[in-house]
Order: sequence, then structure tokens, then C-alpha cells
Amino acid sequence: MQVAIPLFPRLTALDAIGPYEVLQRIPEIDVTFVGAQRGEVRTENGLLGLTADAAFDELPAPDVIVVPGGIGTRAFTNGGAVVDWVKAAHPSTRFTTSVCTGSLVLGAAGLLDGLTATTHWGAVGLLARTGAKPVEQRVVEHLEERIITAAGVSSGIDMAIRLVELLVDDLAAQAAQVFIEYDPQPPFDAGHPCKVTPEVMARLAEYRSARS
Amino acid sequence: MQVAIPLFPRLTALDAIGPYEVLQRIPEIDVTFVGAQRGEVRTENGLLGLTADAAFDELPAPDVIVVPGGIGTRAFTNGGAVVDWVKAAHPSTRFTTSVCTGSLVLGAAGLLDGLTATTHWGAVGLLARTGAKPVEQRVVEHLEERIITAAGVSSGIDMAIRLVELLVDDLAAQAAQVFIEYDPQPPFDAGHPCKVTPEVMARLAEYRSARS
Repeated sequence: MQVAIPLFPRLTALDAIGPYEVLQRIPEIDVTFVGAQRGEVRTENGLLGLTADAAFDELPAPDVIVVPGGIGTRAFTNGGAVVDWVKAAHPSTRFTTSVCTGSLVLGAAGLLDGLTATTHWGAVGLLARTGAKPVEQRVVEHLEERIITAAGVSSGIDMAIRLVELLVDDLAAQAAQVFIEYDPQPPFDAGHPCKVTPEVMARLAEYRSARS
Repeated sequence: MQVAIPLFPRLTALDAIGPYEVLQRIPEIDVTFVGAQRGEVRTENGLLGLTADAAFDELPAPDVIVVPGGIGTRAFTNGGAVVDWVKAAHPSTRFTTSVCTGSLVLGAAGLLDGLTATTHWGAVGLLARTGAKPVEQRVVEHLEERIITAAGVSSGIDMAIRLVELLVDDLAAQAAQVFIEYDPQPPFDAGHPCKVTPEVMARLAEYRSARS
């Protein structure tokens, strides 16, 4: 089983690496990082380089696609190499999935038209513009359409565990989860804007403008 | 504030990328991936390449160290470049930390002698051999000794949120958490061996022998 994770400039690393770490635990699953060309791709802040080991045209028909998000997705609103690749590959995948603003790429490829879908909480408006019906849910599945979208960044881990259940079985999913010791105990219950104070959101706004 | 994350052959990617994704959200924190030399380092299964942007001797005195784990740590039981670097850098860090079997590196550097510490659930025996007192806890802090260890793989995310609280404040920690939407909803409660059936552990054993 071939899972392809596309990399593009200014992606969010955890969107890609969370699912990778779950999926690669399963021996019958191979994970390949693909890009417009082979070679290094830098994350949104430039602080990390990840290697694309295949170009899109070298991997035209993967079984599963996991599209990560990141500010770099905004470059694909009107198309681009990753959008073309997803669009061409989707008809033969078992599942075409996204994490965070990766759903904007699925949307730009025309895959979400009229479907409920999710994304990072800060990108709900952008997702709506693709024709999707945004819902605030951690993972949104359309098994018949073979499309699964996950919410912001870390939600890709939850989605990938479910994906293993769908691709293999529930024992495999739990085996992957226990291996990566995914028994979350965050020191705060602060995982969504609805759970934090205005002071936290103000601090975040400050940080986001400092980084951009 | 300079955070250094050492990369070495056959590391576990999420051990490094989980904390990176939390820490890099804070504008006053810079994250640098370091290695024995600059350039690409491959993860345990070879499926992913990450770039080390500095060599150990170019970054001798970071403020914070986060050592990831992975099967590659077993090469450092009796020392090695990463062990020497951690040992030399620790006296001037604010915190020296590890995720998963990264604690074996801290142990090999002599930093855990007589201290309680944690690691991946499968490496408790190895950790004990370094002189540490293993405890089954997600994050173990020794604030006076400036040493924090986290359990298996995904626990680095929890630790990094706490680290932001210690380095900046609780608003910063929650801002990072809400940005990465760390509101975990795994489809199973299967994050630790004590939570799963013998069938899950048998499947995992099968997978581990297939991958090795």
C-alpha cells in the first residue's frame, strides 16, 4: 500500500509528520514524500528542511494521499502542481485526505464541492470559498467519496489512526497508537479557540503578526 | 532564545517535529536542527529525510536542547558525537530535555545519574542501565537540575507546551497549543500498553519484527 505525502514550500511540518509517524508503523504501508521535484522543501518559517524523495510525475497513482497544510497552501488557490497531481490521482486512490489547510488543496482540486469538510480553525472562511461546507469537527469522513479531512495541525495524528483502521483493521490502528504512545496529557485544556480566554487569543494574534 | 534539536541517523521524526512545531510558534524562540555535520539525516526506516542546518561545533551553547529518540540512539550507549555535544552544552542550558529514547542520550552523557526519568515504554530497562530511575510518567521534570524527559514519541508535544510555559509564560503555552489545535481526540484509548489487549500487543510485536 503506497501512501504519498506531498511537500511544498512553506508547509506545516507536523501536518505531514504526525500521519507519517502513525502510518509508517504498519509494515504493509509504504510512505513516500513527493514534491514538484525531488529534493529539499522548507517549512513555513524556513527553520526545517524535509526531503521530497519523488517528483509528482514519478508517483501518479498512490493508494492514499495525505495533503498537509501550512501558509504555503495559499499559493494554490487557483491551482498549481500539487493541485493538478491530487486531481489526477484522486480517481484511483483508496482515500484522499488532508490535514489542516491541506483541505484548501483538496478544495482547489474540486474534490470538496458540496461536501462537509474541516480545516484549521483560522481557515474556515477560505475553505468555504472552495465550495466545501466547513464544519468544526476534528475529523470529517466521506467514506463513499473516499475523502477525509482533519482539522488543525495535530489532528492529523488522530486521522491517521482512523485511516489505519480503515486500511487494515482496528488492531493495527491500536498497535500504531500504542507504539507512538499517543496517550495525550497536555498541561492545558487549550486545544481550540472555544476553550481559551481572550488573553490567549490576543497573545496568539501578537505572535502571528510577529512571525509574518 | 536558541533551541537546538539534534538529528542523528535512524531517529524517530515525530519525537523531533512535535516539540519543534510547538516551540517555533513563539517569536522569541529560534529552533535549529543540528547534526554531526550539516545535511540530510534519514529516519529509522529511511522513509524520511530531515536537514541538519548546523554541525554540533557550530552551536556549542544553545539555551534549550531537545533530544529525540529512535532506534538510532542505541549507537550512542557508549558515547558518540551527540553525547559529547549534550554533555558539553548542558552546563549552560536553561533546559536539557529528551523525548522517547532520547533520554538514553542524556543518560549516556551522565546527566540522569540517580534522577527519575522517563522514556518510551519499551526502553525502560535500557534507561535504568544509564543510572536513571525510570518512572512511567508522561513528562518528568527536574527544574533545579534543568532536566526534563518525556515518554514515547507523541509525548514530546505535551512536554514542549510545558517548556513554553517555563520559558515564557502560560499564555504563550496556551497560544502555541491553540494554534496547533492540540485538542486530542484519538479514535481509541490505546496510548499505553496498560490500556490495550494482548491481541494489540501481539500485533505490535509482529509489526516490529517485520520492520527490523
